[in-house]
Amino acid sequence: MSGIPNLVEGNKAYAASFTQGDLALPPSQKYAVLTCMDARIDPAAAFNIPLGAAHVIRNAGASARAGFRDLVISQQLLGTTEVLLVKHTGCGMLTFDNATASGLIAKNKGEQAAKEVEDLDFLAFPHLEQAVRDDVKWLKERAVEEGVKVTGWIYEVDTGKVRNVV
Amino acid sequence: MSGIPNLVEGNKAYAASFTQGDLALPPSQKYAVLTCMDARIDPAAAFNIPLGAAHVIRNAGASARAGFRDLVISQQLLGTTEVLLVKHTGCGMLTFDNATASGLIAKNKGEQAAKEVEDLDFLAFPHLEQAVRDDVKWLKERAVEEGVKVTGWIYEVDTGKVRNVV
Repeated sequence: MSGIPNLVEGNKAYAASFTQGDLALPPSQKYAVLTCMDARIDPAAAFNIPLGAAHVIRNAGASARAGFRDLVISQQLLGTTEVLLVKHTGCGMLTFDNATASGLIAKNKGEQAAKEVEDLDFLAFPHLEQAVRDDVKWLKERAVEEGVKVTGWIYEVDTGKVRNVV
Repeated sequence: MSGIPNLVEGNKAYAASFTQGDLALPPSQKYAVLTCMDARIDPAAAFNIPLGAAHVIRNAGASARAGFRDLVISQQLLGTTEVLLVKHTGCGMLTFDNATASGLIAKNKGEQAAKEVEDLDFLAFPHLEQAVRDDVKWLKERAVEEGVKVTGWIYEVDTGKVRNVV
């Protein structure tokens, strides 16, 4: 268990030199980044997001559908007008579909654990570039308003580079 | 529009000095942080999360229910055994409920925009400490396995400090 010691000790140092306590709630640069929860991504550093500038939404696979509620709140209640969708190489969501996920859970955790999530759509995807295109298309059709700009990107976990897809 | 220039220019500098291209997919320190998408939070810095160490899930309000799929994947497929739930002061989700959110959207964006999200549960909460306790309880009952440790915290956006709730 290293989560609590990391948090408690590291936050003391962070708070001791913290100087940005007067930032406003709505993102100052009016954009949202939707990316993956993957441990190898540090969005603030890798995507150069100043503190207070942008919403950062992170879920398994940077799924547009899973981020729908977040994007509605970001745009319609907090005024963002741009979405950057960033998926990444080596994503776990490229490695299974619903059936294989259930099978893995049964193998790792037992049949009962698999049964408890049998109705869950894991929202995995078999092809990275295509998934970026599909999610950007879905966002434009379903989850962003007229005038909101949406672009799709891939972050390479082995190089630290991002590249534009759409 | 500042999202793309921030990303493109900032990422060049990040990638130029990037040295951690060999990190493994499963989080090396086997934990997950579930926090809010709020623009004022930089989890890697404020919560001292080394690159590659932990999943970072972010949604509106650090909602446990909204993060269910992510936590299943984190624990059951990628082996994490600890969850830190971190909500924060000044959260937008403290300021409305479903009815007032719909009303705000109608006022800001028009009746059609409000109608399109009329079935959406915004998962807002009226009291911060209680919401941390409620979500930790829900996680323990519904979303974590035997032996997974769950704790709840509040990050103060005006001081940069975290404090433990449960």
